[in-house]
Amino acid sequence: MSKTLLLINGPNLNLLGTREPEIYGNTTLADVEDAAQKQTDDLGIKLHTFQSNHEGAIIDRIHEARGNCQFIIINPGGLTHTSVALRDALLGVEIPFLELHVSNVHAREPWRHHSYLSDKAVGVICGLGVFGYTAAIDFVAHKLGASKSAKP
Amino acid sequence: MSKTLLLINGPNLNLLGTREPEIYGNTTLADVEDAAQKQTDDLGIKLHTFQSNHEGAIIDRIHEARGNCQFIIINPGGLTHTSVALRDALLGVEIPFLELHVSNVHAREPWRHHSYLSDKAVGVICGLGVFGYTAAIDFVAHKLGASKSAKP
Amino acid sequence: MSKTLLLINGPNLNLLGTREPEIYGNTTLADVEDAAQKQTDDLGIKLHTFQSNHEGAIIDRIHEARGNCQFIIINPGGLTHTSVALRDALLGVEIPFLELHVSNVHAREPWRHHSYLSDKAVGVICGLGVFGYTAAIDFVAHKLGASKSAKP
Amino acid sequence: MSKTLLLINGPNLNLLGTREPEIYGNTTLADVEDAAQKQTDDLGIKLHTFQSNHEGAIIDRIHEARGNCQFIIINPGGLTHTSVALRDALLGVEIPFLELHVSNVHAREPWRHHSYLSDKAVGVICGLGVFGYTAAIDFVAHKLGASKSAKP
Amino acid sequence: MSKTLLLINGPNLNLLGTREPEIYGNTTLADVEDAAQKQTDDLGIKLHTFQSNHEGAIIDRIHEARGNCQFIIINPGGLTHTSVALRDALLGVEIPFLELHVSNVHAREPWRHHSYLSDKAVGVICGLGVFGYTAAIDFVAHKLGASKSAKP
Amino acid sequence: MSKTLLLINGPNLNLLGTREPEIYGNTTLADVEDAAQKQTDDLGIKLHTFQSNHEGAIIDRIHEARGNCQFIIINPGGLTHTSVALRDALLGVEIPFLELHVSNVHAREPWRHHSYLSDKAVGVICGLGVFGYTAAIDFVAHKLGASKSAKP
Amino acid sequence: MSKTLLLINGPNLNLLGTREPEIYGNTTLADVEDAAQKQTDDLGIKLHTFQSNHEGAIIDRIHEARGNCQFIIINPGGLTHTSVALRDALLGVEIPFLELHVSNVHAREPWRHHSYLSDKAVGVICGLGVFGYTAAIDFVAHKLGASKSAKP
Amino acid sequence: MSKTLLLINGPNLNLLGTREPEIYGNTTLADVEDAAQKQTDDLGIKLHTFQSNHEGAIIDRIHEARGNCQFIIINPGGLTHTSVALRDALLGVEIPFLELHVSNVHAREPWRHHSYLSDKAVGVICGLGVFGYTAAIDFVAHKLGASKSAKP
Amino acid sequence: MSKTLLLINGPNLNLLGTREPEIYGNTTLADVEDAAQKQTDDLGIKLHTFQSNHEGAIIDRIHEARGNCQFIIINPGGLTHTSVALRDALLGVEIPFLELHVSNVHAREPWRHHSYLSDKAVGVICGLGVFGYTAAIDFVAHKLGASKSAKP
Amino acid sequence: MSKTLLLINGPNLNLLGTREPEIYGNTTLADVEDAAQKQTDDLGIKLHTFQSNHEGAIIDRIHEARGNCQFIIINPGGLTHTSVALRDALLGVEIPFLELHVSNVHAREPWRHHSYLSDKAVGVICGLGVFGYTAAIDFVAHKLGASKSAKP
Amino acid sequence: MSKTLLLINGPNLNLLGTREPEIYGNTTLADVEDAAQKQTDDLGIKLHTFQSNHEGAIIDRIHEARGNCQFIIINPGGLTHTSVALRDALLGVEIPFLELHVSNVHAREPWRHHSYLSDKAVGVICGLGVFGYTAAIDFVAHKLGASKSAKP
Amino acid sequence: MSKTLLLINGPNLNLLGTREPEIYGNTTLADVEDAAQKQTDDLGIKLHTFQSNHEGAIIDRIHEARGNCQFIIINPGGLTHTSVALRDALLGVEIPFLELHVSNVHAREPWRHHSYLSDKAVGVICGLGVFGYTAAIDFVAHKLGASKSAKP
Repeated sequence: MSKTLLLINGPNLNLLGTREPEIYGNTTLADVEDAAQKQTDDLGIKLHTFQSNHEGAIIDRIHEARGNCQFIIINPGGLTHTSVALRDALLGVEIPFLELHVSNVHAREPWRHHSYLSDKAVGVICGLGVFGYTAAIDFVAHKLGASKSAKP
Repeated sequence: MSKTLLLINGPNLNLLGTREPEIYGNTTLADVEDAAQKQTDDLGIKLHTFQSNHEGAIIDRIHEARGNCQFIIINPGGLTHTSVALRDALLGVEIPFLELHVSNVHAREPWRHHSYLSDKAVGVICGLGVFGYTAAIDFVAHKLGASKSAKP
Repeated sequence: MSKTLLLINGPNLNLLGTREPEIYGNTTLADVEDAAQKQTDDLGIKLHTFQSNHEGAIIDRIHEARGNCQFIIINPGGLTHTSVALRDALLGVEIPFLELHVSNVHAREPWRHHSYLSDKAVGVICGLGVFGYTAAIDFVAHKLGASKSAKP
Repeated sequence: MSKTLLLINGPNLNLLGTREPEIYGNTTLADVEDAAQKQTDDLGIKLHTFQSNHEGAIIDRIHEARGNCQFIIINPGGLTHTSVALRDALLGVEIPFLELHVSNVHAREPWRHHSYLSDKAVGVICGLGVFGYTAAIDFVAHKLGASKSAKP
Repeated sequence: MSKTLLLINGPNLNLLGTREPEIYGNTTLADVEDAAQKQTDDLGIKLHTFQSNHEGAIIDRIHEARGNCQFIIINPGGLTHTSVALRDALLGVEIPFLELHVSNVHAREPWRHHSYLSDKAVGVICGLGVFGYTAAIDFVAHKLGASKSAKP
Repeated sequence: MSKTLLLINGPNLNLLGTREPEIYGNTTLADVEDAAQKQTDDLGIKLHTFQSNHEGAIIDRIHEARGNCQFIIINPGGLTHTSVALRDALLGVEIPFLELHVSNVHAREPWRHHSYLSDKAVGVICGLGVFGYTAAIDFVAHKLGASKSAKP
Repeated sequence: MSKTLLLINGPNLNLLGTREPEIYGNTTLADVEDAAQKQTDDLGIKLHTFQSNHEGAIIDRIHEARGNCQFIIINPGGLTHTSVALRDALLGVEIPFLELHVSNVHAREPWRHHSYLSDKAVGVICGLGVFGYTAAIDFVAHKLGASKSAKP
Repeated sequence: MSKTLLLINGPNLNLLGTREPEIYGNTTLADVEDAAQKQTDDLGIKLHTFQSNHEGAIIDRIHEARGNCQFIIINPGGLTHTSVALRDALLGVEIPFLELHVSNVHAREPWRHHSYLSDKAVGVICGLGVFGYTAAIDFVAHKLGASKSAKP
Repeated sequence: MSKTLLLINGPNLNLLGTREPEIYGNTTLADVEDAAQKQTDDLGIKLHTFQSNHEGAIIDRIHEARGNCQFIIINPGGLTHTSVALRDALLGVEIPFLELHVSNVHAREPWRHHSYLSDKAVGVICGLGVFGYTAAIDFVAHKLGASKSAKP
Repeated sequence: MSKTLLLINGPNLNLLGTREPEIYGNTTLADVEDAAQKQTDDLGIKLHTFQSNHEGAIIDRIHEARGNCQFIIINPGGLTHTSVALRDALLGVEIPFLELHVSNVHAREPWRHHSYLSDKAVGVICGLGVFGYTAAIDFVAHKLGASKSAKP
Repeated sequence: MSKTLLLINGPNLNLLGTREPEIYGNTTLADVEDAAQKQTDDLGIKLHTFQSNHEGAIIDRIHEARGNCQFIIINPGGLTHTSVALRDALLGVEIPFLELHVSNVHAREPWRHHSYLSDKAVGVICGLGVFGYTAAIDFVAHKLGASKSAKP
Repeated sequence: MSKTLLLINGPNLNLLGTREPEIYGNTTLADVEDAAQKQTDDLGIKLHTFQSNHEGAIIDRIHEARGNCQFIIINPGGLTHTSVALRDALLGVEIPFLELHVSNVHAREPWRHHSYLSDKAVGVICGLGVFGYTAAIDFVAHKLGASKSAKP
């Protein structure tokens, strides 16, 4: 039976690709979600995507995923460092998740080095740019046994 | 012209796959290096691998790479948290590098949350198990323009 | 004249009783609210209940209570540790409140030991499970002079 | 068979009700213990009470309770923040306990925010005044199955 | 061409002037916004005002201002100390902003001394009461070249 | 009766306008004091100005103001972060004061984020450049009832 | 009517004068108490002295002083740095007290720099050797209006 | 002439061997003291043993040992981390002492990592279980020249 | 031969007795110095007094005392907490000194709890009001062998 | 079947007995190893000894011990406080180990109070001088059931 | 054209060579300045020297050097650790400077390890005694191209 | 008799002069060692030089110097901040040493501000570029009495 993956992007990620192109490139959030759709189609995984600037709306969306989703990839934006409620939501629905950041948070302000999610995530990817989404989906496929490759 | 990638594994990673298989699986370091070899062959990238339990030996190896290598993937093991000399070596040779951990360091002891390398790395991958090596090489290929995929 | 009590449950408490039953039991939020209704009916107190995963919605609800409510019992969930705005809302409406946690927050992660509300609350109850709501309402009745018992 | 509850009050609680009546009211420790006696009689629980200003005497009393007591309610007074030996005594006899403070410790000096007991207590009640003892006994009755009420 | 200014008030500022009049006076948020309107009219600046108790709504409003607004004055209320997402929104739209507090935050709780916005703000005004809004608009006019005065 | 305002500039502010013009502009301290003179003349306020690089001299000057001055605006320069004696002087004479910084101190070294004066100041203005002096005097006029404007 | 003074010496002060005479001199606790007796006799003050190595016994003694003692001089020994219960006892009986240390605690281990009593004491004397007791009694006499001298 | 050794066990060590036997084994304090008696008899050392849950009683006992005891072995239990008075007592009598813990304190709560005694002890033994007492006595014998063995 | 004592008062102590009389009383610095003159005359000690708001002037005065003064009593005012240069001056001239504060610094802001002088002072007196000067001079007399009393 | 013990000495322990004889005595590392050899011969334990100043060499040696050694006694020298890689090596080979220091590390610099090994060691011995090795081997014998004594 | 060097010595350095000769030797400040004069004469550098115990005077002197001096060597004494105003003065005049300490500040009190100047200095020399001045001038000569030597 | 000096360069200093020439110049380590050779020849000092990227090798080299070397100049590179073993080696051989850094470590990352060597070094030189080596050797000559100059 087909597996379902939920891809969540948090506050300000709707601006992706439309600001500071020399740093972030020109790939928009729509581009990222389209590419993710193609990649999951190839892998036989069902994909849901969601973006919001509202912590509460993201928590509602996570609750909704309970029982009908096998994995979450989340780029929590600024909520990474400030939202215990988001952590509790992810733990509450008991769906394994991967934390993802487009930029290298370790090279930024000190308070960006702490995440309320990382110790409960399966893993963390940061600094790979939008390619991070590709790598994350490959990992999920590998984890869910949906991967086409025979990589270790 | 072909690009060269150096894959470095630090202290204790020679034990990979031979202890705590329920956590780390049965994939040995040799398996990882073999898979990396195949993956880079497919991508047309030249690969060098190196493992040592000696900080000094790893620094010597990095110096050696200067001028003949385009990227380093490094799993620094315990040196991550304690070696300024390793950081200085990576900066000294001016080769971009990716930091990789097999386990999720954020879910472990507090002093494992700080890395002397992360803020200078291109990016960091942790917690993906040995699949992290696969994802890292895919990223390097993407970065070096050697990737076969047309992902964003 | 009858007194009014507002019972607020914050983010993720809508999941109560539906996850980790071995820890939290099978009492759902609806059960808790029903029992609270019966208890306040017996005590001659008017009860309003509210649950939301949105910080802003909770603040709006608190503002609404101004001038028509004598006490608030609040289980702020994860907002306990992160929301100065919630603190300011409770102080702004000048309604005395009790802070309540179902689990013992002191036995959990270090950052759960700090609350932005506790120093302004009348009191704090934690670790009593859903019985905490019963005890809280008894206290409010005692405080508002609506209690039937002659306890000290 | 009847259950036994031990109610311990630590240093300076012998002064209860005889100082600062505008804050603490006029209820003395004797009043509190009498009310507790009536409340436990009603609930069919056997009650022992103990107060001392001596850490060692309290530890001795806790040891004595071993094997003949099902629950301890303790208001440790100033020892809350300074006594590891008290913590060890409570853990050593393996009797579940509730920590109780008459005032809201979170609204006082910063070093009153840390307790050596809280993370090992079943729960903590603070700031409810002497009503806290009533609520604590109700909880114990509920916990021990001696409660008359059918609250959740 | 006329310049546009966005005046944002965060959580709980809708209560302005209706509580603790001995401290905050009787000036309501409506009064503040009306006075701001008159002042900007005089200065030939177009004004938009916005107040919300929802972090997400404020972020949405900031995004909306992108490309059609030259300056933001923001009184972030309690979000000042807790919202990285708000900081990221302000940086994301690349509109210069001034941070404003009605009360003197330095004379309040220690955690009010840190702001996630100040180091990225053009400047900060606090403690001037509602006069702070007047001063802020004067500064914006000065900055945007719309000021009538020839002050240095 | 006319009110008196004392404007104090601390160490190194005598260099204002003569260094790093791209940052600080070309407005010198003399220019600032002249503009302040004109502004206070218009407002019917008597102005005294004082600048010194000597902590002791500034303290002496503040003492001198006792009983014959209604407000102090002080830009304490580097003494902001290191002088308890200056704080004590300002408190000792019991004259309300406003703290002012030309640059945004929050965007500079971490130890510039703490001020020994802020919690005792009426308010703080920083980052507005030399316009900050204009805004400060407007506020003082407003506060002293000398303001010509009817701003809120 | 005659005033009563209670002089308390805490743990290990019974050893005074019998160890390390090169540092502490040869004055024993008995000598100190005898001299205090003579000094208070001269001043018309009634003196009670007490020494114990037991925290609980000292607290009991302080409680006993309630209502029949106007001042306490206390050298709390090692309890200075560790006993919240002692602080609470002194506050509970509402008798003003002076804290005294024979040695200069500031010149010793860092954790001796913090006292749980100092912020509630009238004053603190340290480092004056056993002369500190003489000075303390002089101060008490001055404070209680029993002093013979007309010093300022 | 025969040497005297004092073996002190602090709070809760009277429970040794009677709780959590899977961790601590079945060796009781009486067993430990009997074995110590036999071991010291063999070594020609005179042994005194003492256990108390009262800090004050332990201090009294240490004072008593002054001048008639050459070494102290102390397992201070919870007082290790909280009693400056105990430290002062040991330093006051000027008898060298060894600090001993049955469990490995470094593997427990962070605040168990600090001891008020360790820096003044001759040495520290922890984690060896009750064998630690045997090793400690062997060391004392070695130190006092009473050892039968010719170990280095 | 007669001994010389230097009494130094630091910044803002020239205001003594002229502000907040309900706290500090009406004793001025002149009164304090006069009383000190009489007290030292009686004791046969030569007295020099000095007050300045300038750190540098105080240091100069201390240097001047070198070789012709046996003791310094210093109330350093706000320099207590900020001046390493003052500490170095006192150590440089190798004259023993007593640190004195009129108010109880431990009951004030946290940064007033640290002094750059205390660990090098003979002793510290605080909170005794202006009586502290009397006690300090008595101690100096006792120390210099000029005291008339035979106190211990 | 005979048990094997590995005794490791880290950096600088090759200097043992040849420097500061008044502190460390004249026992050299060779003496220590010889005595250990005799002691283990008597106990029927097979002994391997190893000393190196190279972290990497010690890690290699620990790896080598895997599967053919039942216990490690390690004096890690300065690596105690700095080597995560050494910790990982000891955990990786899953051989129980005892941490040993000749001097009392708690009486030295603050950063010597933290060890990266202690929380994973069976136990820790420090401050017993070279006798610590004797005690450690006795413990190992006791633990491995090879001890001749019938101590508890 | 000849270069000008300003040599500044801060508080208490006027005492150099006249106290603690066993540590600091007998070289006085006059000796140091004479030797510096000879050394700079030889090197063709014009020298100005200045010493003061007044922070303000040193700042004034630095301002004066602006535009007519190419390098400053400063031994800031105790101001090193406390004066932001001194830092600002040195940065304000934009003259490169070398920080110098006669003693090894790293071997002294912890708060001497932080300097407000070091991160803006060209370099720092400490612990070389008065020879440090010689080395500093050699470096300045080297830097200004006035050195006679051809050292690297 | 001729004195011997050992010049040690730690990890990554073999790269000196071959990277970032705009910062470090073009002087290579070989250049530095050659210049040092000439300088010591002139001064009649025997020189040994050593560079390694291996901590263990540097420790071995220091041990080797014991008894045949009068001074060590060491640029420890990244080991400065991480190697207790290196500190112990330098202390173990009891040879005075000077710590040297080419760049100004105080202007770099915060963790570069702490050195495990500085408090035990004779002195520290940093930020003088490769000229630091020249100054260091001059100082050693001065210290060993081999200097030709008669500088103070």
